[in-house]
Amino acid sequence: MAHRADVIPVTFETRPSVYKHWTPAFDGHVATLSMDVQEDAGLSPDYRLKLNSYDLGVDIELADALQRIRFEHPEVHVVVITSLKERVFCAGANIMMLRESSHGWKVNFCKYTNETRLAIEDASEHSGIKFLAALNGICAGGGYELALACDDIMLVDDGNSAVSLPEAPLLGVLPGTGGLTRIVDKRGVRRDIADFFSTLVEGVKGKRAVTWRLVDAVYPTSQFKAAVAERARELAALSDRPAKGPGITLNPLNPTVSDSAITYSAVSMTFNRAKRTADLTVHAPTGPQPSTPEEILKAGDQFWPLRAFRELDDALLRLRFNEPEIGTVVIRTEGDPQAVLAVDRTLATLESDGDWLAREIVLLMKRTLKRLDVTSRTFFSLIEPGSAFAGSLFELALASDRSYMLDDPERENFIWLSGMNHGLLKMGNELTRLQVRFLGDQTVPTDLLRHEDGFTASEAAEIGLVSFAPDEMDWEDEVRLAIEARAALSPDALTGLEANLRFAGPETMETKIFGRLTAWQNWIFQRPNAVGDKGALKVYGQQGRPEFDWKRT
Amino acid sequence: MAHRADVIPVTFETRPSVYKHWTPAFDGHVATLSMDVQEDAGLSPDYRLKLNSYDLGVDIELADALQRIRFEHPEVHVVVITSLKERVFCAGANIMMLRESSHGWKVNFCKYTNETRLAIEDASEHSGIKFLAALNGICAGGGYELALACDDIMLVDDGNSAVSLPEAPLLGVLPGTGGLTRIVDKRGVRRDIADFFSTLVEGVKGKRAVTWRLVDAVYPTSQFKAAVAERARELAALSDRPAKGPGITLNPLNPTVSDSAITYSAVSMTFNRAKRTADLTVHAPTGPQPSTPEEILKAGDQFWPLRAFRELDDALLRLRFNEPEIGTVVIRTEGDPQAVLAVDRTLATLESDGDWLAREIVLLMKRTLKRLDVTSRTFFSLIEPGSAFAGSLFELALASDRSYMLDDPERENFIWLSGMNHGLLKMGNELTRLQVRFLGDQTVPTDLLRHEDGFTASEAAEIGLVSFAPDEMDWEDEVRLAIEARAALSPDALTGLEANLRFAGPETMETKIFGRLTAWQNWIFQRPNAVGDKGALKVYGQQGRPEFDWKRT
Repeated sequence: MAHRADVIPVTFETRPSVYKHWTPAFDGHVATLSMDVQEDAGLSPDYRLKLNSYDLGVDIELADALQRIRFEHPEVHVVVITSLKERVFCAGANIMMLRESSHGWKVNFCKYTNETRLAIEDASEHSGIKFLAALNGICAGGGYELALACDDIMLVDDGNSAVSLPEAPLLGVLPGTGGLTRIVDKRGVRRDIADFFSTLVEGVKGKRAVTWRLVDAVYPTSQFKAAVAERARELAALSDRPAKGPGITLNPLNPTVSDSAITYSAVSMTFNRAKRTADLTVHAPTGPQPSTPEEILKAGDQFWPLRAFRELDDALLRLRFNEPEIGTVVIRTEGDPQAVLAVDRTLATLESDGDWLAREIVLLMKRTLKRLDVTSRTFFSLIEPGSAFAGSLFELALASDRSYMLDDPERENFIWLSGMNHGLLKMGNELTRLQVRFLGDQTVPTDLLRHEDGFTASEAAEIGLVSFAPDEMDWEDEVRLAIEARAALSPDALTGLEANLRFAGPETMETKIFGRLTAWQNWIFQRPNAVGDKGALKVYGQQGRPEFDWKRT
Repeated sequence: MAHRADVIPVTFETRPSVYKHWTPAFDGHVATLSMDVQEDAGLSPDYRLKLNSYDLGVDIELADALQRIRFEHPEVHVVVITSLKERVFCAGANIMMLRESSHGWKVNFCKYTNETRLAIEDASEHSGIKFLAALNGICAGGGYELALACDDIMLVDDGNSAVSLPEAPLLGVLPGTGGLTRIVDKRGVRRDIADFFSTLVEGVKGKRAVTWRLVDAVYPTSQFKAAVAERARELAALSDRPAKGPGITLNPLNPTVSDSAITYSAVSMTFNRAKRTADLTVHAPTGPQPSTPEEILKAGDQFWPLRAFRELDDALLRLRFNEPEIGTVVIRTEGDPQAVLAVDRTLATLESDGDWLAREIVLLMKRTLKRLDVTSRTFFSLIEPGSAFAGSLFELALASDRSYMLDDPERENFIWLSGMNHGLLKMGNELTRLQVRFLGDQTVPTDLLRHEDGFTASEAAEIGLVSFAPDEMDWEDEVRLAIEARAALSPDALTGLEANLRFAGPETMETKIFGRLTAWQNWIFQRPNAVGDKGALKVYGQQGRPEFDWKRT
């Protein structure tokens, strides 16, 4: 069994000129992302990506393409997702890849692909970019889950092309990239029909797929392209994006990577492998910051919030895939909190004025913080003199499992809230992190949380904005002991503990995907019935049939 | 590793005269359930139930005691849950028991204990019985989870007694009986405080437990009893239950049990072990049925809905624990559908009139159907001529993963709805099964679903009340093939599939417990970090410390 993460570090940056699997095309308001997976260009040479099946590398390109459409192509109002292969849209996640992957790799692969699909829905709901899945051929498993993430699904009616979720009957695992949740919760497929559909290897095609709400429309081959183009125009008309560009270019992040650290411009992450901890530090902006749409457009990807959160996002992804044994991440911030608050004010103002670029920057910050919410590592924030836990950067403390703030009357140490804490950076459950924090405590007055001054450590601890506020006598020992104690606990128990406590309050489709569907899939992914020598995932495509332990659990 | 279910079948019926672990006491409106676990009276001789730790047998008695308070003691308005042991309330689920149990046993044990605690909350919300946890000593793990299910938690302040959830730090597993969900979602403990608390072996005592919302009040030993009595009186005053009895007696069900069948008066379950299927049949009432409160009181536990659903509940529990390899349950009904509808009308009318006994019967039906919803077996309902899928019994079809209805114009075959389908038997997500069924399809007119006539197979299939309506030519093959195909699938994939599809729509604390918390616990329960030779659960109390694979997942 290849544990790829132990061998080759994964990088997440790419650009269209080096894409191997996707072809973006632009025609006015319509972008088309065509999947044309190169069989022999998987992340590992151990498998071939036949029939537009995908591995992490394919999804990294998709995520990059979506991100660039947001920032580099503001004139795009609708994205058509289709395939360049004849009679094949997408066969889903590559089974040989799954079979050869470690448990941790499978789980993180699924998490990433889920995030990519949720980013599609985020763009549809918040960015004014609608998505049309144009299924020009068979569409199975993860392929159909990609389609489900789109606003509209059109399927060619050629007597052969079907949509299917064959994971359970073929592989003994779940359609785990949101599929089971989306068919019933998003598309409103009846649960008994969904049950039947999800146990059918061959899937459903033609009018029956429409009747059962699995797709929105079917068209014969001869009319398919025209119908897709027509529907794309209709969807594009719904957009509130700019009529034309320019956008801004997302340049490479170019971090300095050593064995013990990844250093970006505003973010650094250093590893203490002996202690299984990392120090993640985010630096506030320095110098004058742009404050008008024109200045921001000119600053482009060097504008601090875009730069810092792109770097943070990249750091979190590298942590997940390349540093599986780092259990605890200690978050710090540095610099001028007033500079963060000034940027927050600029973003909030321009976002509410409808500026497309400010909106995209805020949405990227939001997605990055949600990436942190579902990263299965412990996060402790340390708030010390010289830190910049203000507004959007204070979200890092709110997203942490705990926060410690030094209470030393001799040294200035404040935290600040901004408008960004009150609705622009909501969690997956559609609440702000402040709302989740004070879910049970309606006595925290809103006006207190909206006051303009900073909070001292004792104020913050009293209100409940931080977990603990040790004084200068206790600080070092208390923080050290907390981190050491954490590092001694079972990594699995911590993953379960954090996954349950981080999402107090209501659930949404997004939290159901990560909390319910993903949890069950993780369970199934390590059961002998899937991954044992005779498990369904192991024997698929080999000689022989799976042998199951028939006990239901 | 002892797989108890393979050896000794579990039975779920008991009565106060043979309780080994609980002492019920009645004083006017106040019932006191005192835990006094007999160390040497566990279900297995392999462990000793020290310090009021519990196994399934202890929880079966608790569930029985709660059920009897509902039906046999309508004059009880508040239940105090406490312990007869000095300085010990409850140490939680017995660790030696967990260590020696199979994965399936652990999962089903947790499910049952979760259901018992949710039944406490159901009684508080719907039955007018309030619950007061009087923690007269240490209260750890599952003991604290039992307290969390109560309306009020009072803790003795003796310098020693603490509440704690030490599962993660001590055993490398989760507090899985609702604990992690309830502390944040029910009690509103802040997520960072909950994180800290859930990693503390020693727990929290005294005023800090109140400040952190972990308990409602603390009292010194000298004042504790009086304070509990006073609070019990206050809670009792909130009740709308009768001022006095009589109640009705819950007599033993006395099924006939053979190797291939369990036969009750209105329910039978026969096993085809070679095919790994069971046939579950529920018979409609025969003969005249009581229709006034007096008549029902006189009929007592022989009144059909109470009798039939108690039997169904018992059958489902035996299925879960004693028949792990039975994967598919085929549900049929038999008898006069009009008789079911008549009983439904009686119950609905009396329930809305505030009759306590009708209310309890309806709530028991509701809990039993929810037991079915979270039973990890496939349920297919077969609706054939002579069946009685009407009203409350039609809920069995709605709860099934699929339903097949014979469409033979030559033979009468109808399904009927009643008022019971429209709100009295809600699922754990607080929706009716009809609402979940038509979640995505607002075109189904409510008045159609409320019409008084029966639906033919073609009507039912057209509206979507049944999954499929094969004609007489196809019926036998289609049903047989569906059952055979189901039986061939991975049992784990089916468990995950069903757990995701059955709960379309919103989530509640109850569905979060079964969908999120339980799923993560199941995952952790089979990880080597918990159950491997050096796993935390395995080595607890033995020589040596756990050895973890430090990879986070």
